[in-house]
Amino acid sequence: MKNISILGATGSVGIQTLDVLKNDRENFKLLAVTANKNYSKIIEIINEFNPKLVALMDNVAAETVRKYCIEHNKDIEVLAGLKGLTSAATLKEVDMVVTSVVGMIGLVPTIEAIKAGKTIALANKETLVVGGSIVINEAIEHKVKILPVDSEHGAIFQCIEGNNSSDISKILLTASGGPFRGKKRDELTEILPKDALKHPKWNMGNKISIDSATLMNKGLEVIEAHWLFSVPYEDIEVVVHPQSIIHSMVQYCDGTVLSQMATADMRLPIQYALNYPKRGKRIIDKLDFYSLDKLSFEKPDIDTFGCLKLAYEVGKKGGNLPTILNAANEVAVELFLKNKINFLEIEDIIKDSLEKFQYRKDIDIDIILDTDVKVRSYVDKKYNV
Amino acid sequence: MKNISILGATGSVGIQTLDVLKNDRENFKLLAVTANKNYSKIIEIINEFNPKLVALMDNVAAETVRKYCIEHNKDIEVLAGLKGLTSAATLKEVDMVVTSVVGMIGLVPTIEAIKAGKTIALANKETLVVGGSIVINEAIEHKVKILPVDSEHGAIFQCIEGNNSSDISKILLTASGGPFRGKKRDELTEILPKDALKHPKWNMGNKISIDSATLMNKGLEVIEAHWLFSVPYEDIEVVVHPQSIIHSMVQYCDGTVLSQMATADMRLPIQYALNYPKRGKRIIDKLDFYSLDKLSFEKPDIDTFGCLKLAYEVGKKGGNLPTILNAANEVAVELFLKNKINFLEIEDIIKDSLEKFQYRKDIDIDIILDTDVKVRSYVDKKYNV
Repeated sequence: MKNISILGATGSVGIQTLDVLKNDRENFKLLAVTANKNYSKIIEIINEFNPKLVALMDNVAAETVRKYCIEHNKDIEVLAGLKGLTSAATLKEVDMVVTSVVGMIGLVPTIEAIKAGKTIALANKETLVVGGSIVINEAIEHKVKILPVDSEHGAIFQCIEGNNSSDISKILLTASGGPFRGKKRDELTEILPKDALKHPKWNMGNKISIDSATLMNKGLEVIEAHWLFSVPYEDIEVVVHPQSIIHSMVQYCDGTVLSQMATADMRLPIQYALNYPKRGKRIIDKLDFYSLDKLSFEKPDIDTFGCLKLAYEVGKKGGNLPTILNAANEVAVELFLKNKINFLEIEDIIKDSLEKFQYRKDIDIDIILDTDVKVRSYVDKKYNV
Repeated sequence: MKNISILGATGSVGIQTLDVLKNDRENFKLLAVTANKNYSKIIEIINEFNPKLVALMDNVAAETVRKYCIEHNKDIEVLAGLKGLTSAATLKEVDMVVTSVVGMIGLVPTIEAIKAGKTIALANKETLVVGGSIVINEAIEHKVKILPVDSEHGAIFQCIEGNNSSDISKILLTASGGPFRGKKRDELTEILPKDALKHPKWNMGNKISIDSATLMNKGLEVIEAHWLFSVPYEDIEVVVHPQSIIHSMVQYCDGTVLSQMATADMRLPIQYALNYPKRGKRIIDKLDFYSLDKLSFEKPDIDTFGCLKLAYEVGKKGGNLPTILNAANEVAVELFLKNKINFLEIEDIIKDSLEKFQYRKDIDIDIILDTDVKVRSYVDKKYNV
């Protein structure tokens, strides 16, 4: 029996994690959940899983849940704010923390969970994007395993298991290409949020859907892969694979390429991380090779989708640049979703922010958090008009 | 430094094994080689690798090599016949025996090598087809590792490394479909040996090329996979994949499919087995995903290619049936190559032989060898007219 805590239980990955847990109550017990402010979903979770601890970032939402628990005689600790998030990440009996919050708010609770010795099922890629070196060093120091909850990184992880890391010659990170694959820049200026949200292969949250449309998601994944698997950026290649059947590949020094395939369903990488080193019983649709589209591969168009190129550049230089890129992107995506900017301006805003802020090579958590706040404020002031 | 013995050094796999060794003289020393009667190739090998022991099945060929060694002052032991083959398989200083002889003559020397504690790089699939239970039990008893030298089984092996065997739900054994994929039975009666020898993807010896055309090769591989990976026949599925880029796949209980890909070059699985658990430096062409044909998958047509169906049936029943199937097939392929029978008669002759000989469930080496001789004699007498 593994005791689980989910940070960000009401988002897309959080909800799918709950679905995996529902299918395997024998092996998992949900002890803690957090959310931003979605109290009604949290109340549903309380009724279904009866956790020990619940935390909401929003004070009012937390108060609503607290009242509900009193009225319904639920003996559940209800906390509010970042402190609550950290309590859920470090709760004593918890074995594994699923970090499925969206955005870089996941950084601090993830580090706290690592310090508390919890195995991390990492769905919050921003954590490694902004604080990769810090997080990985903490994980090594506390002998904590970080298991990726991402179809791509879960695939890479499985293609490396049983092999020597030193034999890896290249990580081939697959990308569906997003909803605008094949389009050129002049076709992208008039894009509406509803078009960008329609991902051809994956059912995901809003932020990540837009990131998939700009290929920033793939850029963030490149940085994440660099930290997770200790592979230099030169040896991480993005391969567009529109059918999304192969979820990534690893090429070895002898010319062998290992790949992981499955139907596109986030519950599989979630389930893999939860069960690791075992595997759970299949809850996703079986891959039917005979009804599949033919599998194909293309190079990504980094001239059109400049966010991917930016992510590589920023990843290689490191320091505070990934934080600047990530913060500018998060605000720009929000602005795009509010129709305040057009699709291509997401990239422009990131470039502007990278130029505006001074490069710092050596960073710590405080610098990351401070940079994040400043970049957000800068972008918001300048473009949220 | 690993000391290597190659049984069948002058055949297709043998020659490619020599090529792998040539590329890595730091890690491998060739100590023994055997051949049927190709003395000129053996003399080439002597001059290039200077082994300690050489064996030829043919007495006259052995005598020719012996004279050569005396004339050229080579201090090499030259033996003849099956005894020589066994000596090469059990030579004291040898660490790994590559069994690349063609046909079931590989059985006895492979078992002797296992008893002598040598790691087996198994390219001779007939060994497991006819004597699977015996060979595997000997390997377990003598704690000997059997490493497959076959693109398919090498792929499966790699897709299982780092996983729990109990999590395997299915082996997906890929097949190119051979030169007659898509054809129906009435199109196959007039097939000539030269057409059947033209394999679309692999450069192989004559026997295995014909077996690929009938899909008997895939049938033998199904039986081989059953023994190598302890997977029931019901869980071994042949998937036609005409591009021969994916060399086989393993499906796990959670719905994950792991696959191994590479350019179609036998030197890769040979190199993998030789280097295991390490990997050697790439000697094959790199897989270029951007110039690949689209990857596709089909069900095999077992009505047209009945040999595959026969192999499943025979494999499931076991006992002496795989020996009968294999012996009848070996002679029938020879007869086809000599234009004595037509392409579809290969299957007919196997069926005839399976009906002619009594089924025996419990077998030992003597029964296998005796059955083999009797079936060959039966087929030869009846059809070599």
